Amino acid sequence: MDLNAYLKDRTALVDKALRAYLPCEDTLPASLHKAMRYSVFAGGKRVRPVLMIAACEAVGGNAARVVPAACAMEMIHTYSLIHDDLPAMDDDDFRRGRPTNHKVFGDDIAILAGDALLTEAFILLSNPVLNPDVDPGTQLKVIHTLSRCAGSLGMVGGQVVDMESEGREVDFPTLEYIHTHKTGALILAAIQCGGLIGGGDETALKALTTYGEAAGLAFQIADDVLDIVGDQDTLGKDIGSDQARGKTTYPALLGIEEARARALELRDIAVNALEPFKEAAEPLRQIAHYIVDRSS
Amino acid sequence: MDLNAYLKDRTALVDKALRAYLPCEDTLPASLHKAMRYSVFAGGKRVRPVLMIAACEAVGGNAARVVPAACAMEMIHTYSLIHDDLPAMDDDDFRRGRPTNHKVFGDDIAILAGDALLTEAFILLSNPVLNPDVDPGTQLKVIHTLSRCAGSLGMVGGQVVDMESEGREVDFPTLEYIHTHKTGALILAAIQCGGLIGGGDETALKALTTYGEAAGLAFQIADDVLDIVGDQDTLGKDIGSDQARGKTTYPALLGIEEARARALELRDIAVNALEPFKEAAEPLRQIAHYIVDRSS
Repeated sequence: MDLNAYLKDRTALVDKALRAYLPCEDTLPASLHKAMRYSVFAGGKRVRPVLMIAACEAVGGNAARVVPAACAMEMIHTYSLIHDDLPAMDDDDFRRGRPTNHKVFGDDIAILAGDALLTEAFILLSNPVLNPDVDPGTQLKVIHTLSRCAGSLGMVGGQVVDMESEGREVDFPTLEYIHTHKTGALILAAIQCGGLIGGGDETALKALTTYGEAAGLAFQIADDVLDIVGDQDTLGKDIGSDQARGKTTYPALLGIEEARARALELRDIAVNALEPFKEAAEPLRQIAHYIVDRSS
Repeated sequence: MDLNAYLKDRTALVDKALRAYLPCEDTLPASLHKAMRYSVFAGGKRVRPVLMIAACEAVGGNAARVVPAACAMEMIHTYSLIHDDLPAMDDDDFRRGRPTNHKVFGDDIAILAGDALLTEAFILLSNPVLNPDVDPGTQLKVIHTLSRCAGSLGMVGGQVVDMESEGREVDFPTLEYIHTHKTGALILAAIQCGGLIGGGDETALKALTTYGEAAGLAFQIADDVLDIVGDQDTLGKDIGSDQARGKTTYPALLGIEEARARALELRDIAVNALEPFKEAAEPLRQIAHYIVDRSS
């Protein structure tokens, strides 16, 4: 299997659907819809949507069936970035080399564009026309999984603890809390929702959960390592920016070598969990390798 | 029927459920959950939840069945107030005589508390344990109705146009757009979701939609009139605050008397639509009278 070709193809599926699902730029209020589309099409790698599609395919589901939920996931991820970048939060002027949403549209529109994208995710997830092959009970489980992982006990909770920890000594449990919540929760939700929509049974969902938890954390550790040793192109943000901000990272707590070892260990846990899916899980398998190997 | 007793009883149902559904104040992250509860329990009148319960009862449904959705509605309303009050938006220091969320918890936590409340609404709406008597297909319709009314083509869209119109000459169609979207959309959603969960058929839902559209607009016009002629206690905000802010209002465009006449006309449209429900719609009927009569 050619991972690059796979990523390119599935990313294109998601991009095409996002263009169709989001209200057009000239739909009233135009400023709001322009701002929403600006950040959704700002060069994101569609990591979470592609993971959701790959998990759906791992349990034998068709990619097309999971595309609306994958797009909803990307909308939630994008809203979180818009709000994170606000002056009242991380106060970032650039993301992926482009001015952040509030720099272009103003703080007020950026707040509302984030709100609208989060809401749009649930409009999409509950749209009967766009999800004809998913039975309502499963669709509700998807909405429940995604919203829980995005809420105060998931992503938003992680963001709060991360903010409150800046510039302070952070112990290992707090660091794990931040990562499993701020970034890990959505990645896990992507994997679980893919499995649900693909029709996976309980055993399959359990295996996918193991994969999602391990891969999500591995992704974060690899990101932390890259922040120190990577080149700017691979990372898409400034090298050393975590340190400059007084953020505690895995390498800071464990040392680079131990952090790398932990990432490799998590990668193996993730890959081993995929065994029952055989060939159908090849994309998920290669993604786990790709995530970790770029940092080692 | 004693409207006051009805409102008191149904409000108590909602308040009790909200206390149970929202994460406790000491659940991690505590600052976030404190902020969420602070604004949910800041003296709101639960207008939208009570309307949802009354609509459910009008079609013969049981109040208990609709309480989770009614609470979700109140969470969405509360999130919108927290974000509206932010310095980047209306920059309000007080609401109902208490400091606004960001004045107590900071802008960052206020943004995230709003985000978490919006998300919590969908966690609640998709919770299978809390909605055992609503079939999944209906529940999805409720989620779709609520999210559409709250999103970029509903409440958030209305908020954007309202913001962009401040200090400008606003024509009548724009004023109607602002009101039917910014406040009308959620009120309509409350009525429609109540009808859906109560098991209303298509004819019933159509009648409720007529009621919801008319009552929502009547409520806004009455509020505008009260802003000029009311006393501060009835209104819960400063008299003349719309004018001070350069907001266009119905009385400003139509004159007080014509605005009052329009509110009365809308009240009658709302009340007439309830005819098929007979006695079961008495609460909705009295609420329509109450909304308009306080301003005339």
